[in-house]
Amino acid sequence: MTFAGGEKEGLEGFIDRVASSSPAPGGGSVSAACGALAGALSSMVCRLTIGRKKFKEVEDELKGVLEKAEEIKKQMEEFIVKDAESFDRVMDAMKLPKYTDEEKEKRNLVVQEATKGAITVPLQVMEKGLLAIKLSQIVVEKGNPNMLSDAGVSALTAKTAVDGAYYNVRINLNSIEDQDFVTSTKEKADALKGEAMLLSQEIERKVEEKLTQTQ
Amino acid sequence: MTFAGGEKEGLEGFIDRVASSSPAPGGGSVSAACGALAGALSSMVCRLTIGRKKFKEVEDELKGVLEKAEEIKKQMEEFIVKDAESFDRVMDAMKLPKYTDEEKEKRNLVVQEATKGAITVPLQVMEKGLLAIKLSQIVVEKGNPNMLSDAGVSALTAKTAVDGAYYNVRINLNSIEDQDFVTSTKEKADALKGEAMLLSQEIERKVEEKLTQTQ
Repeated sequence: MTFAGGEKEGLEGFIDRVASSSPAPGGGSVSAACGALAGALSSMVCRLTIGRKKFKEVEDELKGVLEKAEEIKKQMEEFIVKDAESFDRVMDAMKLPKYTDEEKEKRNLVVQEATKGAITVPLQVMEKGLLAIKLSQIVVEKGNPNMLSDAGVSALTAKTAVDGAYYNVRINLNSIEDQDFVTSTKEKADALKGEAMLLSQEIERKVEEKLTQTQ
Repeated sequence: MTFAGGEKEGLEGFIDRVASSSPAPGGGSVSAACGALAGALSSMVCRLTIGRKKFKEVEDELKGVLEKAEEIKKQMEEFIVKDAESFDRVMDAMKLPKYTDEEKEKRNLVVQEATKGAITVPLQVMEKGLLAIKLSQIVVEKGNPNMLSDAGVSALTAKTAVDGAYYNVRINLNSIEDQDFVTSTKEKADALKGEAMLLSQEIERKVEEKLTQTQ
């Protein structure tokens, strides 16, 4: 991951930047990072299932899952950076002058547009996160059972990506004046969150069932 | 984060190693990483609350939270590495010779001990993760409300650390022969998971309430 400075940073470097007194990267980027980790874990389970005689029957399906999981990982990695960038754009807009009425009006327009942009990113994280949950459901059910806990953690991190991004959509919606945008976006986010919850409950039951069976 | 090679790796580097066909780092390390991110997000909210006149009343309490959150972040970062190491030790034990009865017996003893070690790490991640949930509850309730979504994501990632580590405890318990160890460890893990669930539900309700109030 290269950032503004162009320098490679460690995992600890990212965690430290989250912890710092700079508001970005914050919960939005962390949600996307959870989504990337979900994709990565599903990828790993696929790789440790594909090519083994025992799992020949599911090989083709898991090859498809692997491809999609890798794509989600890549997209989520982009969202980690995009979320921080879109936050910075809102901050920049806030710094515009507001002495005259004209300036105030212009500033407000730019802030509103930037905030809508800051909502687009977590909404995409929610969509891709839901897809990541669906992939993890397949690897929980059909992946190498030795990797059951990894498949389960993939589902958990994907769910966290969805729920974390949901909070980011909601808090930004509170600053939006365009009520049609607020209503339609909240409906969309609520629907994604609801679907993610139902799927996650199913997956959790399945993981628990398999953990108990293999005792 | 420095690993065996001694080289610093990027966040993408860690995510790629999770995705690779090597089983470690896997879900155990990812759970610990979620715990570290939870600590980092609570730290950030504290830093953006402390020192502001408006939040003078909670300053002392949040200074205490900041200190504990930083400690959790550091401990969880250590668990990211320790989890992968303890997995490698189990793999090494599995490679011991098993031609004679004596060898078989010795190998089994070493495998059992290594597996118990691989359970200790996620059990600690669960304990620290529960503490991280408690800290995030304070920052949700008393932190700078502009950072409400960050505080909420802190709670979500802390919960994922607990639940993800739980799966790792459970899957490893399935290989343990010492039934007293299995029973007592499962009881402990179930209790931690149950407490984490109740607290997380409370926090989610509180975040939702605050998101709605500030509309």
